[in-house]
Parts: sequence; structure tokens; C-alpha cells
Amino acid sequence: HPEWKTEEPFASVLKGDIKKALAGGKPALLKMMLATHANTTTEEFEKIVSEWIATARHPQTGRLYTEMVFQPMLELLDYLRANGFKTFIVSGGGIEFMRPWCEQVYGIPPEQVIGSSIKTQYELRDGKPVIMRMPELSFIDDKEGKPLAINLHIGRRPIAAFGNSDGDFQMLEWTTAGTGKRLAVYIHHDDAARETAYDCDSHIGRLDRGLDESPQRGWTIVSMKNDWKSIFKTDKNAGNKKDTP
Amino acid sequence: HPEWKTEEPFASVLKGDIKKALAGGKPALLKMMLATHANTTTEEFEKIVSEWIATARHPQTGRLYTEMVFQPMLELLDYLRANGFKTFIVSGGGIEFMRPWCEQVYGIPPEQVIGSSIKTQYELRDGKPVIMRMPELSFIDDKEGKPLAINLHIGRRPIAAFGNSDGDFQMLEWTTAGTGKRLAVYIHHDDAARETAYDCDSHIGRLDRGLDESPQRGWTIVSMKNDWKSIFKTDKNAGNKKDTP
Repeated sequence: HPEWKTEEPFASVLKGDIKKALAGGKPALLKMMLATHANTTTEEFEKIVSEWIATARHPQTGRLYTEMVFQPMLELLDYLRANGFKTFIVSGGGIEFMRPWCEQVYGIPPEQVIGSSIKTQYELRDGKPVIMRMPELSFIDDKEGKPLAINLHIGRRPIAAFGNSDGDFQMLEWTTAGTGKRLAVYIHHDDAARETAYDCDSHIGRLDRGLDESPQRGWTIVSMKNDWKSIFKTDKNAGNKKDTP
Repeated sequence: HPEWKTEEPFASVLKGDIKKALAGGKPALLKMMLATHANTTTEEFEKIVSEWIATARHPQTGRLYTEMVFQPMLELLDYLRANGFKTFIVSGGGIEFMRPWCEQVYGIPPEQVIGSSIKTQYELRDGKPVIMRMPELSFIDDKEGKPLAINLHIGRRPIAAFGNSDGDFQMLEWTTAGTGKRLAVYIHHDDAARETAYDCDSHIGRLDRGLDESPQRGWTIVSMKNDWKSIFKTDKNAGNKKDTP
């Protein structure tokens, strides 16, 4: 793809300038997703993802991405499941990008993972059926899309929902509009020292309306900086708060 | 809708001529589905379906539709679940038409029901969010659509699949193309006395290619007439084969 040398967001990615690549916001991310996630069979794509996730490491921490999941969220999932809840992931990420590793990392099986998707096509190759991933967007699991996807995939209203950006606003709104007790929680990424800090001004993961309206809506805001003793799974870094009895 | 007096399939439905209404095949069914399943919120639609299914009776047998499910299939579902399988329904019917009653009738929860769907839209009504059902088709869960829907909703290939028409062919093909042991079964509706008989010439539920190709593909054909002792749930009709020890 020689044209990627000058075409954004690819040009910035190739130069290693991730910040500039992300300056295009979600449209830029979608463009990258279509370019990198399509034109394979579903089985080929699953293999690519599985190999990548097994080896890829975060450029700053050097840790596997699967180790950089949040310890408090893992504990929350365990707690909910131990109390009879069925847990789902409803992500803006590609549904087939997440499924190969979400069960091992979060204990959530493929059929309980919901995400953005591209169009697929059923084809026969030498008499053997394959599902081809086409370079065309099918569904963006963001904002209003989240309650619609929950309705399509799950078919009932969640009792509790957890988000981190304005892309989750409608999911929390839909969840708390149900009768009976409901829980809506925003995780505020405000810990630049241990993880990263962003909210109103971020291109990706902007949290602005959510911060403003949570108090009057009765939604809980969790500060990663103030409320989380640990951030990452099996976190042994200094700087974490000690486990006080 | 005065125009329905002359417009098919509505004209035939209003005259009570279901056979003629169905002569238009699946396009006629879809037209009826869009006319009757849209322009409500998801909550209103669920209420309509729940009330209908609780009272509607089959015109010939006078029995509730929920009593006219197949006893052998209920036993199959129980048997699979008792052996660690997770069971799903993958139907050409409307996904939100089936969900309100499939858990009670088949033991299959809403999130494990897959079907055809119409477009939905997230709206605020007096500040309260609703999901509107729009009069526009979104997805037809039939033929090639079935493996695509299985891939989207479940994200893994079934080990066993059961169908009754050529609309299930690709689902059975996709299932048996996996590695390891797989099971594909066609239920042949060939019992005019106890239920109904149709295959190659039916407008709805045609089973033609499936009958032809099952033997060479190693798929099992079950004859309702010859292989099923009972047909309907809690069936006490005479004419059923006796339970031989």
C-alpha cells in the first residue's frame, strides 16, 4: 500500500506517531479497522488476532496487553457472576477482534461479547464454506448503537452497566431507565501516574457529558486515582495503595 | 388500512384464506411481518407478543401454540443441556417475536435466540429512552444468513445443528465443515395424519436440496412419521405410537 505513506491515519502510524494518527478520532480508527480487519476469512482473522494478542506488548510498560486489564474490573466481574449475574462486554472494538481472548482474560465467552462489526459473506471455496470479512462497515457499537446492540444480542435490559466514555452514555441511560434497582458506573481515567488521564478533551474515549450529568442522574463516578488500590492485573508496581485491613 | 382489502397478502388473510396468503412465499411473509411487527417500542411489542402467545390457539387443534411444540425436540434440548451443551434457536422468525416465550417453552433465554430483525432506533420520549421498531427490514435469518448470524451472535461454530427446510441448509453445511465430530439433522415433516406433510413443493419450509444431499453429506434425516413416537408436547392423542419397553 504505497499510498499509505501519505494517507492519514496510515502515514502517522507508519511514522510511529500514534498521537497524530488518533487525532482523526473515531473515523480514523474505523479506517484503520477496515484496512486491517477485512479481506480474510473469519478463521484466518481469529488466528491473526490470537497470535498477535499472545505476543504483543505495550510500548511503554513492555507488558502483554492481556496483562494490562484492570484488576478491579476483574474482581467486579467475578463478584457479579458469583451472585448470579451473566456478564457481557459491549465494546466499540471489533467483535471478532475481542472474542478470541475475552474468555481467557475476562471469563466472558464469545457469545457474550458484543462489538462493532464489518459485513460478512458466506462463500464456498473448493466446496468448503467460509465466512469472508468484507471491507465494509456493518455496525458501530457506540453511543445509541450500544442499547440497540444490547437489544439485538441480549434481548433484555441490563441491571448494571459500566462505562468510561460518552460513547457509553446511552447504554447507561438505557440501563437505568428500567424499573427496579439499576446501577450505572463511570470509570474515570484520571490517574496519569499509574495509567493515563483523559476526559473532556480526548479525541478517543471523551468523557464530558457523562461527568457533567452523572451526579443528577444518580450514576456513580469511580476515580481510578482515588478509588482503585490496584490498576492492572497482578499489579506489583510500587505506587499502588497498600491493601489495608 | 382500507388498501389491505385488495392488496396481497393482506386481502387473503382478511378473507381467512391462509393458503393463498402464503402462496406469495417468504416475500409475502416478510410483508406481513413488517406490517405487524413495526412502529411500536420494543417494550410495547413484547407486551403484544406475550398477550397473544398466552391466548392464541391453533385453528385446527384448538390448542395453544405453546403446546404445539415438538416433544422429541424438547427432549433433545434437555439431553444436550444435561451433557454440557449450550442451546440456541436460529430461526427465520422475528427475533423479538420469539424471545418473550422461548425461555418458558424451550428453556432457551432471550440472549440465545437468533432470528430475523427489523431496524431499530434509539429515541427519547419525554426524557425517557425507548427503542423504536422501524418498518424496515434489517436482517433475514435464512439460508446464507444463518451461518452469518451464528457467527455474529455466537462467535463460534456449532457442534450440532437441526433444521427442517432448505433455509437451514447452509447452517448445517457450516456446522459440519468444522473439525472433529459434528452432527447435522433434518426433521422431515412427513406425517400428515399427526401433524402435516411437506417437502419439495412447499412455498414455505421447502425441503428439497436437503433431502437430496443429506445422504451423501452424512446428515441424518428424521422422519416424523416413522421415527417419532410423540409429536406434540404432552401429547395424549390416540394414534401416537406406544412407548414400548
